[in-house]
Amino acid sequence: MFFNNKVLDRIVLIVAGGSGIRMKSLVPKQFHLIMGQPVLMHTIRAFHDFDPSLKITVVIHDQFIRHWKELCSYNEFFIPHQVIAGGKNRFESVKKGLQGIKPGCLVAVHDGVRPLVSQDTIGRCFETAFECGNAVPCIEIKESIRKIEKDGSNMQAERRNFRIIQTPQVFESSLLINAYESIVPEEITDDAGLVEKSGCRIYLVKGNEENIKITHPHDLIIAEALFRQHHSS
Amino acid sequence: MFFNNKVLDRIVLIVAGGSGIRMKSLVPKQFHLIMGQPVLMHTIRAFHDFDPSLKITVVIHDQFIRHWKELCSYNEFFIPHQVIAGGKNRFESVKKGLQGIKPGCLVAVHDGVRPLVSQDTIGRCFETAFECGNAVPCIEIKESIRKIEKDGSNMQAERRNFRIIQTPQVFESSLLINAYESIVPEEITDDAGLVEKSGCRIYLVKGNEENIKITHPHDLIIAEALFRQHHSS
Repeated sequence: MFFNNKVLDRIVLIVAGGSGIRMKSLVPKQFHLIMGQPVLMHTIRAFHDFDPSLKITVVIHDQFIRHWKELCSYNEFFIPHQVIAGGKNRFESVKKGLQGIKPGCLVAVHDGVRPLVSQDTIGRCFETAFECGNAVPCIEIKESIRKIEKDGSNMQAERRNFRIIQTPQVFESSLLINAYESIVPEEITDDAGLVEKSGCRIYLVKGNEENIKITHPHDLIIAEALFRQHHSS
Repeated sequence: MFFNNKVLDRIVLIVAGGSGIRMKSLVPKQFHLIMGQPVLMHTIRAFHDFDPSLKITVVIHDQFIRHWKELCSYNEFFIPHQVIAGGKNRFESVKKGLQGIKPGCLVAVHDGVRPLVSQDTIGRCFETAFECGNAVPCIEIKESIRKIEKDGSNMQAERRNFRIIQTPQVFESSLLINAYESIVPEEITDDAGLVEKSGCRIYLVKGNEENIKITHPHDLIIAEALFRQHHSS
């Protein structure tokens, strides 16, 4: 047991710092509507529904903070959350979100554009992080995969040996703070990759298939359909 | 140029031999309805729409052949296609589908449960197979991936070096026939994996994101939403 049965503060850092380039849209994807409400509100609600005592911080591109506050007011969205201005990329945004967080908490870093994270996934992540110091949700790869070699050729890879990684990625806060302070990522990576580089073993837990990352316009269609199904069942 | 500008016969082998275990349903997924019609009809239509001169063969579990013929009659589904009885697994089904196919054609092997293959994807596959002898559609991996090691630990893998493989996988027919005759797969693999084992270089082309494989109940919801979007745009 990593934490000797202490009651820990649990902080959720929702990263929604994107500025919408991939969606080919003026409005970043976290503000697009699903069932009439911005994606980001659904994401915040998932964590609030899991446990209203979670401390939720949302990192938003500073150009959109006012827009977000107006959206909250317009939608009468009253779930308590702190808003802070993001940095120039995801790494900088998480780093800013970690400022002021003390060692000895559990920090869940979650993509703002993953509104379909299940209560079970959130539960498994916090539980395993409490036991092991970190937890990262994953799903199996359903399809064949091939590896691109340096010479441009490609060969079959064994999909059973790989997992697709989701969020929330939960860490004992000092693991994450140390990783973000000591490592400058050479390439885009996720939080698990950074913490791993700082020498820590990563613990995988089961995610949920629906927990998709909304990055392309058709993902919004998919997310809306999954939400409707969820609410009608 | 692999084929010296000859006009080739083009055969589509749609594999729909599954018996529904993964869908937790008595009816295999290829017979579930999307927009009121069985998945498999949408799949067949995608190829027929691409080119009505394609020769379409559908491999179906023998327990469901009668059911399929009744569905075709009930739905007034008149796109010409040959139906043959599948084997006990995908490998055996494709092998049976290849019987009677001559060398020197192009054979596209496609999953019956991928109704959302785009016209562009089909076109790219046939074109590149005509030029290079084979073509396999793929998409990039959007999310982080991790590799599971033999000792149970896991480590970050470089997602940029991997592709998710779709169908149709198109081959000059003798490549595929030889691979299926000479190789007994030790584990589940796709046609590209088999042909590669027989010593052939595989050529990747761009697939389409929507070209999902319907394996779980929520994939049906996603597919229906994508179809509706496609038909309304």
